[in-house]
Amino acid sequence: MKNIAGIPENGKKRVVIIGGGFAGLKLAKSLKKSEFQIVLVDKNNYHQFQPLFYQVATAGLEPSAITFPLRKAFQNQQHIHFRIAALEKVDAENQAIQTDIGRLKYDYLVLAIGADTNYFGNQNIQRHATPMKSLGEAIHLRNTILTNFEKALNETDPEVIDSLLNFVIVGGGPTGTELAGALAEMKNYILPKDYPELDFSRMKIYLLEAASKVLNGYSEASSIKGKKYLEKLGVQVMTNTFVKDYDGKAVFLADGQTLATDTLIWAAGIKGNPVHGLGAAIIGRGGRLKVDAHNLVENHSNIFAIGDIALMTTEKYENGHPQVAQVAIQQAGLLAKNLKRQEKGQALKAFKYVDKGSLATVGRNLAVADLPFVSFQGFAAWVLWLFVHLMAILGVKNRLFVFINWAWSYLTYDQSLRLLINPRKESGKEEMENVT
Amino acid sequence: MKNIAGIPENGKKRVVIIGGGFAGLKLAKSLKKSEFQIVLVDKNNYHQFQPLFYQVATAGLEPSAITFPLRKAFQNQQHIHFRIAALEKVDAENQAIQTDIGRLKYDYLVLAIGADTNYFGNQNIQRHATPMKSLGEAIHLRNTILTNFEKALNETDPEVIDSLLNFVIVGGGPTGTELAGALAEMKNYILPKDYPELDFSRMKIYLLEAASKVLNGYSEASSIKGKKYLEKLGVQVMTNTFVKDYDGKAVFLADGQTLATDTLIWAAGIKGNPVHGLGAAIIGRGGRLKVDAHNLVENHSNIFAIGDIALMTTEKYENGHPQVAQVAIQQAGLLAKNLKRQEKGQALKAFKYVDKGSLATVGRNLAVADLPFVSFQGFAAWVLWLFVHLMAILGVKNRLFVFINWAWSYLTYDQSLRLLINPRKESGKEEMENVT
Repeated sequence: MKNIAGIPENGKKRVVIIGGGFAGLKLAKSLKKSEFQIVLVDKNNYHQFQPLFYQVATAGLEPSAITFPLRKAFQNQQHIHFRIAALEKVDAENQAIQTDIGRLKYDYLVLAIGADTNYFGNQNIQRHATPMKSLGEAIHLRNTILTNFEKALNETDPEVIDSLLNFVIVGGGPTGTELAGALAEMKNYILPKDYPELDFSRMKIYLLEAASKVLNGYSEASSIKGKKYLEKLGVQVMTNTFVKDYDGKAVFLADGQTLATDTLIWAAGIKGNPVHGLGAAIIGRGGRLKVDAHNLVENHSNIFAIGDIALMTTEKYENGHPQVAQVAIQQAGLLAKNLKRQEKGQALKAFKYVDKGSLATVGRNLAVADLPFVSFQGFAAWVLWLFVHLMAILGVKNRLFVFINWAWSYLTYDQSLRLLINPRKESGKEEMENVT
Repeated sequence: MKNIAGIPENGKKRVVIIGGGFAGLKLAKSLKKSEFQIVLVDKNNYHQFQPLFYQVATAGLEPSAITFPLRKAFQNQQHIHFRIAALEKVDAENQAIQTDIGRLKYDYLVLAIGADTNYFGNQNIQRHATPMKSLGEAIHLRNTILTNFEKALNETDPEVIDSLLNFVIVGGGPTGTELAGALAEMKNYILPKDYPELDFSRMKIYLLEAASKVLNGYSEASSIKGKKYLEKLGVQVMTNTFVKDYDGKAVFLADGQTLATDTLIWAAGIKGNPVHGLGAAIIGRGGRLKVDAHNLVENHSNIFAIGDIALMTTEKYENGHPQVAQVAIQQAGLLAKNLKRQEKGQALKAFKYVDKGSLATVGRNLAVADLPFVSFQGFAAWVLWLFVHLMAILGVKNRLFVFINWAWSYLTYDQSLRLLINPRKESGKEEMENVT
């Protein structure tokens, strides 16, 4: 296998980072001015801001507003190299990775490859359900949602129409909750204006959760208020509800009930993306890689894992830390310092997660906030949610665009992104299937 | 064949408009408050602002900024129905159209289906060249351009690298000229920062034109200045140059020269989109439909054609009017009035094109303007171009976003849309090919 071209051997120690998410990007940025040569590898040429995927899926934000070109983050940097590539295998013995564009030696390897949708082995659900774990999938979901209404217009059978208008979301965590709220607001404010020919009193949005409450892991008050807000917007919240199967038309519940829907959105769980070449022994719960307090992968001396893919167990976090941006960013920040310490022969520092709290928004003026010493819900939580997410978005222009989009939607009860766009060449080579 | 569902027979005369471009949208809007029932049909659910496709292709504007959801244009209107559908055939005898979602009767049919890329019968060029005649194609071109640089990084053979870095644009009209200028600005300001590993002095941009000058049809001064501006930005302008063939790797010119490139962008001509069922006799030059001074299709009493697809010959416009937005909008405006006149038994008015002038921009501060009584070039023309295009964009929010994007690019010499986004579900059903 040939080597990846254009990355010089120049005496600097090489840190290869796989994944440009919260963890990988933060690490690469923190090492910008170090003595290391940095190689960042990602399947896409952009960083994606996962917490707002649901707003792309519901036509509230354009995809470009929550993405940032990785090259732009490292313009003019001679010691940082970026490549679009997929990791195929780690060859730890030879300190090299194999990717779909070639092989590359490393001195330090950092796996920040994140997690993907977990269907818990149910292949029917995997085949028929719609996930939302990447920007591409969020756009696919937007297309699915919009296409359903267009299809419904062309139907006369009420059962077929209901199945197109009904949406079943599985998973009452923040992703499922926020998506259900946004869909309900589309139903309440926008869809009846766009489709005066359809009767939206027939449209049902179900949020299914296997546990006894939504926003499990949040404070009791936030869970209760979250459910109340969802119901206020018209979402049918079903807790203690376990999905057995889905055939593309009907959702089969464990208690024998069925729900007819063309669209099952699966936000019920995630699992670590697979890494080949490191053996099965280091893979723990949820497909995550077992690491020590320095994020060093078990049985390795120069392979680290950070973010969603890392499983670091502590007394407080017996099953590993929560798979959220804050953990990823804090682990990346510490690892940058530890790599520099290691080079200087200094002792490494152990990771300690500082939980800054949890936020989730359900809809206009409705959100929940659990901060370290206080928990509150409603308008103040919603304003805090807006502010925190706005500040977290990468790039001043993106921040400006997201702000304008939000202000616009708030004032007009409308958005203007209900577009079924399909990048394709319509004649000639490389014909693409239509997504709609 | 079943009828299109949900469109009532309510005693109102039905105007069916095919195409939501400049002509079709303007007509539907002008008839909003009429006594007609309006049915607007388009393959997409959005109006696209064609004059700025080249900025989408060169990562200057997001696709959503130059598109507008057609449903949003007619919210809450009970007598306007929109359907995503493709016209398959006109059944003039029964006053009905056949589409891929069903059949529909009409009282008046208006064909506003526009034009597509004309490869003049060369199938090699059609197969290998990249067109830019729809938003989907513009995004496809953006992906092609960005992917070329990523590929070049992984190559070591200088000939392969050159072929990836070289771009050949065929057609020196406004589309080809504006695209060449925008690509040259990417090369001059942005690409060397994003790809410090590549040598951009090797990147060549060719603009090929069969006629003796670019911007043919513009004033002599504008043609000359346009060429000068392109050359100032580094574009190699080749006039009197005729492309014979292209095999995906080399462009073969009539004089025996070849140009090595992976990317041939074809902006050399357009032809009317085909309409089936009306016979060959009514099809004129460039695949356009022959119409009289009222845009009535030859030999028909209730079928009209407006915009790019219409061929109306006059003393001044022997070969039909120019295929530009202004003609489309003016024809649509007149037809709306004429349809109302016809209902009242009044005589129809003949179309007379008011040419408001032509604009084309080459790059930062560089543009040409030919107004009815004056022609000028340079900064003033560029400001006029910006203003006219900004005002022509549909939607206040779109206008605001385009303005911010332009101001941002102008001040920072950068954009942030260099994204290779592919809407897809990564696992399970409806797997899509990767565009990149």
